[in-house]
Amino acid sequence: MSLLVVGSVALDNVETPFDKIENALGGSSTYISLSASYFTAPIWLVGVVGSDFPKEHIELLQQHGIDIEGLEIIEGGKTFRWGGKYHYDLNVRDTLFTELGVFENFDPKIPEGKRNPDFLVLGNIDPALQIKVLEQIESTKFVVCDTMNLWIENKLDELKEVMKRVDVLIINDSEARLLTNEPNLIKSARMIRDMGPKYLIIKKGEHGALLFSEDKIFSAPAYPLESIFDPTGAGDTFAGGFAGYLDSTGDLSFENIKRAVIYGSTMASFCVEKFSVQRLTELTKLDIRERFMEFLELSRFDEK
Amino acid sequence: MSLLVVGSVALDNVETPFDKIENALGGSSTYISLSASYFTAPIWLVGVVGSDFPKEHIELLQQHGIDIEGLEIIEGGKTFRWGGKYHYDLNVRDTLFTELGVFENFDPKIPEGKRNPDFLVLGNIDPALQIKVLEQIESTKFVVCDTMNLWIENKLDELKEVMKRVDVLIINDSEARLLTNEPNLIKSARMIRDMGPKYLIIKKGEHGALLFSEDKIFSAPAYPLESIFDPTGAGDTFAGGFAGYLDSTGDLSFENIKRAVIYGSTMASFCVEKFSVQRLTELTKLDIRERFMEFLELSRFDEK
Repeated sequence: MSLLVVGSVALDNVETPFDKIENALGGSSTYISLSASYFTAPIWLVGVVGSDFPKEHIELLQQHGIDIEGLEIIEGGKTFRWGGKYHYDLNVRDTLFTELGVFENFDPKIPEGKRNPDFLVLGNIDPALQIKVLEQIESTKFVVCDTMNLWIENKLDELKEVMKRVDVLIINDSEARLLTNEPNLIKSARMIRDMGPKYLIIKKGEHGALLFSEDKIFSAPAYPLESIFDPTGAGDTFAGGFAGYLDSTGDLSFENIKRAVIYGSTMASFCVEKFSVQRLTELTKLDIRERFMEFLELSRFDEK
Repeated sequence: MSLLVVGSVALDNVETPFDKIENALGGSSTYISLSASYFTAPIWLVGVVGSDFPKEHIELLQQHGIDIEGLEIIEGGKTFRWGGKYHYDLNVRDTLFTELGVFENFDPKIPEGKRNPDFLVLGNIDPALQIKVLEQIESTKFVVCDTMNLWIENKLDELKEVMKRVDVLIINDSEARLLTNEPNLIKSARMIRDMGPKYLIIKKGEHGALLFSEDKIFSAPAYPLESIFDPTGAGDTFAGGFAGYLDSTGDLSFENIKRAVIYGSTMASFCVEKFSVQRLTELTKLDIRERFMEFLELSRFDEK
């Protein structure tokens, strides 16, 4: 089952209370693809980098079976760079710099032969670009879309257009409240689903995630992590694990979408254990399965 | 199985964005006892009121099978009064007034014949008083203790003494962080358990609750309420449902304590649907069972 991923590819400088790293592989499509690569193939990545993009990052993606035909390399251009600093409680981060480079004029082009993916994941980019992607797609079974406060605040019309055309929208709790101006998350979720997406996932960080369909709600626990090394990319990693698992099973029942939320949470819980994508490059299927079972144990109770 | 409840009995004035109520029945021991009354008997309430305490409130407690031999009525004294106002998002509340009345000199006296309860619930009162209660107890199987930020800030030594002598401590997430000065709740929980309690429950409001034992964690979902009418007493109601269910089953296994957390959450979810204790006076066992099953459905997923 093919999975097409469109998003940013970046070089990140990240500083946490514990350590710092420079020129680390980052970007939404990177995290999504690496996370999904543990579940499904082929994965088709679409993005843009400059000629400064390190060869070893390309090789890493390829080692994970990610098809980078759609990764445009602009000769003489500079790769998107982001610098961020996390504070003690890791919920607050400061963006130190954003150098868009070639990403400023990103015009996603889906290669021929890749316009009929089984699954499409629209990473967190300008919704105007997400629309451009959707317009190139000839057919697909399921569209997963991520977004953020920046687009809710600045590109709401375009985002609303995207929302009408996706199966699952993934946002966090503060973004849901921002999008609807409604503090109650359950009400907010209903309002967002009324804007288009068949399913809505609201991520709540240390409090887990909520999945909403027309008539059902699923509450997923958070993995009890005693220390978070680097939260960068956790949301993208969630989306990648979610879409990768669903794509690999081809089962779009609510029961299976619940499992996909847990696999997304599983991958995100690994992601934050080390800097950058590092933890996502060294996992085994057994690691993932074991943690999935820990999630099961964490929230399971029986009637008596 | 006998359950002894010690805490405040109060008359509340509550104002929410939706409505307001005056002289409503309130206080921690009231909510705890009414909530527990759906699960177990006898319930022995210990508290103090003035001679202004309305007769119908006494009758209500008695109608729920609550034994009020331990409710001291001080002739000419005034019942503890609390006034609070909730704002739009219902997470913030202002205390408008606190008139301690007879509660200022509350000296809990456990009646003879009631000093060997199967279960003891120490409602949220000054830990110095909680110690006075513990000193009167001849034997008990299980002690549940509630507390709050006020005592963490002002009576920490006494609270630490109490914590050494209880089986379960129930607090909310901000109180756990305050008590340990540790933002990570999982670390914070370990630190609190090291202070004494065998089990710890951290309530997280709209995000559910976490139960910790020495080597296990259980994550309980929150009931997805679209509107909360009055949050007053929800924490006490949780404690009452939790202890009442455990007491009624006599099963202190971790599996059963998990179910007790869900029954506590179930009762709290009813409590907030109407003003004061109103919703807790009109439930049926079937209502409670049905909502418990909704909690099960809300968080259940299977491996494939």
